[in-house]
Amino acid sequence: MFYHVKELQYHAKPERPDPIFARQLQEVLGGQFGEISVALQYMFQGWSVRGNGKYKDLLMDTGAEELAHIEMLATMIARLLDGAPVGDLESAAQDPIVGAILGGMNPQHAIVSGLGALPADSNGNRWTADYIIASGNLLADFRANLNAESQGRLQVARLYAATNDRGVKDMLSWLIARDTMHQNQWIAAICELEEKENVVVPSTFPKELEKQEVSYTLFNLSQGNESAEGRWASGPSMDGLGTFNYVENPVPFAEKPTLNPAPDYIFDTPPAVVAGRDRQIPPHLY
Amino acid sequence: MFYHVKELQYHAKPERPDPIFARQLQEVLGGQFGEISVALQYMFQGWSVRGNGKYKDLLMDTGAEELAHIEMLATMIARLLDGAPVGDLESAAQDPIVGAILGGMNPQHAIVSGLGALPADSNGNRWTADYIIASGNLLADFRANLNAESQGRLQVARLYAATNDRGVKDMLSWLIARDTMHQNQWIAAICELEEKENVVVPSTFPKELEKQEVSYTLFNLSQGNESAEGRWASGPSMDGLGTFNYVENPVPFAEKPTLNPAPDYIFDTPPAVVAGRDRQIPPHLY
Amino acid sequence: MFYHVKELQYHAKPERPDPIFARQLQEVLGGQFGEISVALQYMFQGWSVRGNGKYKDLLMDTGAEELAHIEMLATMIARLLDGAPVGDLESAAQDPIVGAILGGMNPQHAIVSGLGALPADSNGNRWTADYIIASGNLLADFRANLNAESQGRLQVARLYAATNDRGVKDMLSWLIARDTMHQNQWIAAICELEEKENVVVPSTFPKELEKQEVSYTLFNLSQGNESAEGRWASGPSMDGLGTFNYVENPVPFAEKPTLNPAPDYIFDTPPAVVAGRDRQIPPHLY
Amino acid sequence: MFYHVKELQYHAKPERPDPIFARQLQEVLGGQFGEISVALQYMFQGWSVRGNGKYKDLLMDTGAEELAHIEMLATMIARLLDGAPVGDLESAAQDPIVGAILGGMNPQHAIVSGLGALPADSNGNRWTADYIIASGNLLADFRANLNAESQGRLQVARLYAATNDRGVKDMLSWLIARDTMHQNQWIAAICELEEKENVVVPSTFPKELEKQEVSYTLFNLSQGNESAEGRWASGPSMDGLGTFNYVENPVPFAEKPTLNPAPDYIFDTPPAVVAGRDRQIPPHLY
Amino acid sequence: MFYHVKELQYHAKPERPDPIFARQLQEVLGGQFGEISVALQYMFQGWSVRGNGKYKDLLMDTGAEELAHIEMLATMIARLLDGAPVGDLESAAQDPIVGAILGGMNPQHAIVSGLGALPADSNGNRWTADYIIASGNLLADFRANLNAESQGRLQVARLYAATNDRGVKDMLSWLIARDTMHQNQWIAAICELEEKENVVVPSTFPKELEKQEVSYTLFNLSQGNESAEGRWASGPSMDGLGTFNYVENPVPFAEKPTLNPAPDYIFDTPPAVVAGRDRQIPPHLY
Amino acid sequence: MFYHVKELQYHAKPERPDPIFARQLQEVLGGQFGEISVALQYMFQGWSVRGNGKYKDLLMDTGAEELAHIEMLATMIARLLDGAPVGDLESAAQDPIVGAILGGMNPQHAIVSGLGALPADSNGNRWTADYIIASGNLLADFRANLNAESQGRLQVARLYAATNDRGVKDMLSWLIARDTMHQNQWIAAICELEEKENVVVPSTFPKELEKQEVSYTLFNLSQGNESAEGRWASGPSMDGLGTFNYVENPVPFAEKPTLNPAPDYIFDTPPAVVAGRDRQIPPHLY
Repeated sequence: MFYHVKELQYHAKPERPDPIFARQLQEVLGGQFGEISVALQYMFQGWSVRGNGKYKDLLMDTGAEELAHIEMLATMIARLLDGAPVGDLESAAQDPIVGAILGGMNPQHAIVSGLGALPADSNGNRWTADYIIASGNLLADFRANLNAESQGRLQVARLYAATNDRGVKDMLSWLIARDTMHQNQWIAAICELEEKENVVVPSTFPKELEKQEVSYTLFNLSQGNESAEGRWASGPSMDGLGTFNYVENPVPFAEKPTLNPAPDYIFDTPPAVVAGRDRQIPPHLY
Repeated sequence: MFYHVKELQYHAKPERPDPIFARQLQEVLGGQFGEISVALQYMFQGWSVRGNGKYKDLLMDTGAEELAHIEMLATMIARLLDGAPVGDLESAAQDPIVGAILGGMNPQHAIVSGLGALPADSNGNRWTADYIIASGNLLADFRANLNAESQGRLQVARLYAATNDRGVKDMLSWLIARDTMHQNQWIAAICELEEKENVVVPSTFPKELEKQEVSYTLFNLSQGNESAEGRWASGPSMDGLGTFNYVENPVPFAEKPTLNPAPDYIFDTPPAVVAGRDRQIPPHLY
Repeated sequence: MFYHVKELQYHAKPERPDPIFARQLQEVLGGQFGEISVALQYMFQGWSVRGNGKYKDLLMDTGAEELAHIEMLATMIARLLDGAPVGDLESAAQDPIVGAILGGMNPQHAIVSGLGALPADSNGNRWTADYIIASGNLLADFRANLNAESQGRLQVARLYAATNDRGVKDMLSWLIARDTMHQNQWIAAICELEEKENVVVPSTFPKELEKQEVSYTLFNLSQGNESAEGRWASGPSMDGLGTFNYVENPVPFAEKPTLNPAPDYIFDTPPAVVAGRDRQIPPHLY
Repeated sequence: MFYHVKELQYHAKPERPDPIFARQLQEVLGGQFGEISVALQYMFQGWSVRGNGKYKDLLMDTGAEELAHIEMLATMIARLLDGAPVGDLESAAQDPIVGAILGGMNPQHAIVSGLGALPADSNGNRWTADYIIASGNLLADFRANLNAESQGRLQVARLYAATNDRGVKDMLSWLIARDTMHQNQWIAAICELEEKENVVVPSTFPKELEKQEVSYTLFNLSQGNESAEGRWASGPSMDGLGTFNYVENPVPFAEKPTLNPAPDYIFDTPPAVVAGRDRQIPPHLY
Repeated sequence: MFYHVKELQYHAKPERPDPIFARQLQEVLGGQFGEISVALQYMFQGWSVRGNGKYKDLLMDTGAEELAHIEMLATMIARLLDGAPVGDLESAAQDPIVGAILGGMNPQHAIVSGLGALPADSNGNRWTADYIIASGNLLADFRANLNAESQGRLQVARLYAATNDRGVKDMLSWLIARDTMHQNQWIAAICELEEKENVVVPSTFPKELEKQEVSYTLFNLSQGNESAEGRWASGPSMDGLGTFNYVENPVPFAEKPTLNPAPDYIFDTPPAVVAGRDRQIPPHLY
Repeated sequence: MFYHVKELQYHAKPERPDPIFARQLQEVLGGQFGEISVALQYMFQGWSVRGNGKYKDLLMDTGAEELAHIEMLATMIARLLDGAPVGDLESAAQDPIVGAILGGMNPQHAIVSGLGALPADSNGNRWTADYIIASGNLLADFRANLNAESQGRLQVARLYAATNDRGVKDMLSWLIARDTMHQNQWIAAICELEEKENVVVPSTFPKELEKQEVSYTLFNLSQGNESAEGRWASGPSMDGLGTFNYVENPVPFAEKPTLNPAPDYIFDTPPAVVAGRDRQIPPHLY
């Protein structure tokens, strides 16, 4: 259950409106690695933890914080859109600034949301739950979380470099710091699980059931063997259970496949025709 | 540039057709962490590497292999669909096996693809590039890759447990082994980059520009403090640059936000009405 | 900013697992009118209110409650999935109950989420922000909210009728009651705004700028004039500003349109060819 | 069954081409509340009405009209795109008007549709049936329709304010007037149904089966009690069957949930690990 | 502009309800090649024809007919859903027919649409305008139309084979016949345009601007040269302007690409690190 | 199985960076008819061919080539993005070129992909497998392929006309030539299959089972009879099996449909209310 307070977790006040930047900032609100993604990802992971304890609590702590970040970004975007102009080619032709805004802003910020934030990315693609990950396996999911915080901090850093507005930069410096923490926390949690489980997910699948002769093999399938120089091509494997090896000229392990013909009721191309033989030559004009 | 050979990388021959399992197997072909996702993810990352070398080569080696896995799964699914029945309620009522198949199979396997594999997941959702990640930052992206291989191996293990067909199990044991290698290789590559760059992505954003007072703080935003027991709540941070701390009762750092009214041409609710005052009481019948 | 407590707003405990019903219940968690939709819809509307006051507060009160409903449903679905079987055609053939489950359950509940809830509907379509509405105009948006609660309560009622599990019914009776309140509250808010603004959205668009001769006209464009009997076809209009009228045989007000040819650099069909004349007859074999 | 006449319902002729406005106008053709949405929504609702009569006729009358509006908008957009320039940075650098157009137009209007309208919104998102609503319950659906016409008229009003082209304004004034009628007609139909059924949808769900103690309760889940001042917080409920009440400090009605462990074949994190205890410490190098 | 009559173009009455077949039939209503796709495809093509005449008329004739087919299918599906049962595992366990229905039907047919047709395919994926094609070039688009009618007739034939209901078969035999006509008509139109324009689209792109040395070359990029036997590998080309040739061992025409490093403000991996050299070894604990 | 060489099939080097054109070029990489679409379409068709031979080989030859085209375009786009500026309104206001770039470029090229290509179209819509077609019927699918190559060449021609960069034009001239070949090859393959099977897909559906009285009829459903002049309206049909005929005033073949009421547990509008009669008039205040 959730309680809301109307105060923001941190300031979200730009020095001045900027509809172009408002559009760009949507990326970290409603994009693949925006705050909606992490908020819902952490909460769905938390609700699926089978057994309670510190991992579930950590997920819910962080999920609740990401909700606050959505709120900060939505507020900032609404303020960046303050008094945003609307217009057509005539307006663009008369005023180069308006022309630049009409090009660089998201038209839906005026037409659809009435100068409010959208649950969408910087191209106006609506947020989709395709972005989020929750598998029930904590080590797998914490890796997803570390990735999300890495991609997220990278995007915020790029946005920080793109603006001169001190109010915007102030808020972004908060988000970057929080992403520093969140990367650190997921690394810590991953290390703990890797120590308990080993590094390969899932740790409970019996080794003897996998095709172990290729469990530590790098197949050189792209010409050139620069990749042979890496840590991944020789020496003990990272899970401590094998030895990396490198196959310079990999070949197929299996035959050329042939599929059986389809039954009549599927109306595929008749087998004789697939085989390149004539089936019938009906009279026609074409 | 790519060359194709028609031999499969590994065998893809079931003991017997099974349209129910064909549907489930689609998940690791065309789902969020299916082979289409990793193939395109690795290749897009590789094509964006600015500068060549072993990382790019590794990405292209692995991307080319994942194409072979798409091919193996497509072949296996087509064979599992051999002679799959079609039918309606009458067929289902007459034969419980047919009834089970009509429930458990994907109807598009008959109607749309003519007993071939679909570029879709186990619910028939078409594959989308929303699933893939390529940011230009290798450490961020290798974490995405490690996650993808972790989720992927987990899903294949679940499928392995769900079937009794020895041919299917044989192929899955290959995929599981390759995911073991791929998790190992991305861990190795991540370790190498973390040693060169430190663990927080992006490593080149200046520390002094982030709001450092909250860079290592865990806010307890979900009641209960089990999360205070974790490695992430105290002691030196994982990046070696700070000390974790735990805030049991976090409070807002900022004020309650108020937004300015919208211009007339946006036709939002008039400010007086938002404020709860009357704007006008026009005569009407409703 | 948000705080979470781990207690549920209301009980979410089924009498027994039921993976078939778990799939169906996803509709009101992650479908078009599921709890994710209303939670994010109310919060995005609230964050965009320009000026604070009771409407914003009401939106945030209700948005926060809907987050609690997501949590209850996610918990209920995880419990309905307790110990859910996985399997192939062989399993289905051996046990009719397993066959029914394999048909009626969502395979991703096992393969993808590891027996947890998905952010998806009852067909496994992932939730998308295409479902939500926030325009900045409160009267428009409260109508969207009244619709959402109407569709939502309807779907929950249908699910209530489909299950015999007393634990599930108990939770659904809570959701149905809350939807009763939410329909009542949005009606109350709508009435208040309609009294202040009149019933046509947006109320601030000048009447004289619309084509008033057709502002209260019903065009009979589907043969048969049953619709002439309705309240909407005669008498004073609902906004009190006009009189309904009915046009039995509506005709076009404008001409047949003709478009100019495209410039050469668009490579459309050449105008002579569109006009049905020959452009060229090049020698070819086809 | 449908008949088409080539004359337009109303004029769709701009004074001059304007590719920037063409992009914006797409919103009300192919956006969430564009004409494709209402046309298909009304027809799908009409086709599902179980029993004929005036409601079905009204739906089909209006659905057929919305098809005519799609046609008007498609024609207008094609004309706004007449002779639209294509180009690259060099063209943009040489001519500021071209630069503004390249920024503000939809590139697919040239590359994909060859200067024709697209079934997409103002950001180029393709129309999706996720936008439409048809539940079989007329009161619920008429509320969806009233919302659609409210959002639609709001968007057209915003576009009206954004253009100086008298031909475009003329067509928009037609659409605004028709939306005035359509809002009025759905309000009339809603009133009629509410009188017959009461205001809560579905009206046929037995009151005694819902958790009536919370059917008229407002939970104050967002700090601050401005919402207590509203009509929705006290007095008789809008359905005449209860009394609104306000809970200032809402608490959970249920316990903290715990989920059972997953079966082995799901390969989730092992229960001991979830509980924070060691499962195994295998030898490894990482 | 459109007029609707309530009579159906052809009968749509099944012998008996069948919710399993209702789900399958959705494919040709709301799938990639369902009637919504062709209706909107033909109309969007028609509205974009620059110049009137027989091609535009043909498109609008056929588009209007496809609207009638949507209506027939929506009616048929509603009737197949008559009295469809809802239920959970308990219902499935008690009655094998109900079990088969719960597996084979679309749960949204009960929960969402209230026993009406959905604008979705047989897996419940909502229809999307991604399916439709309108380029402004008639020859290109008529090829899209011929493909659509080919895929559509194929799918209807597969459905015809899957049902024993004489009422359903009767309606499908109508749709199959109409698809026979529509394939014939698009072939006729294609032949006419090919005679006027030649067979390669667009016919107006100057030959001398394309890299003519590879305009008629088949590169053997998949090992094995069965494809050398085809009509496409030797002899005069189909456009009469060249001669097919076959390259058995194709090689790259260009060099290995190297990309420049990204600017600092993009925060990609630093160039030294990409090159495999150390950038920094900061102190850290991980 | 696939092998990769790092050399490009053809040059992909622009004269100078151009982020505006980079965005436009995405259309033919990740749009509906971009190279991802054809690569995966041909390979999925190839993997589903039941029986080997020249058609399968041709599909795999061409699919492998299209992978090389994805690579060329990804490389070209990355180079066009070299050093692309990022910025806000202030930057746009200071430098008109930057303003034009911020309007005309895809912001995700900087924020998300770090100056790399995206698997998306020119509006930033992510690629989706909704675009691809593989039915198991070769004649149907080769028509899909001919359409894809026609639309693709058309789009590349439009892009060729939009740029002045000789490096870009050089690469596009390669793609245009290859599309010339691919159109020719699919036409050749189609002719071959049409000779063996006749022109209507599927050729194996028994003629006597379709409603033959309308198999060659054009219904004039759009007022005006220009379409009567076409080859499709009279004379022998293209399949040689019938005679075209034209119905100037088409009428319905069936009755007005009426649907039965829904069961109570669906909670649709009660039948009495649908029929326009009162069901109940409960006391309420609204």
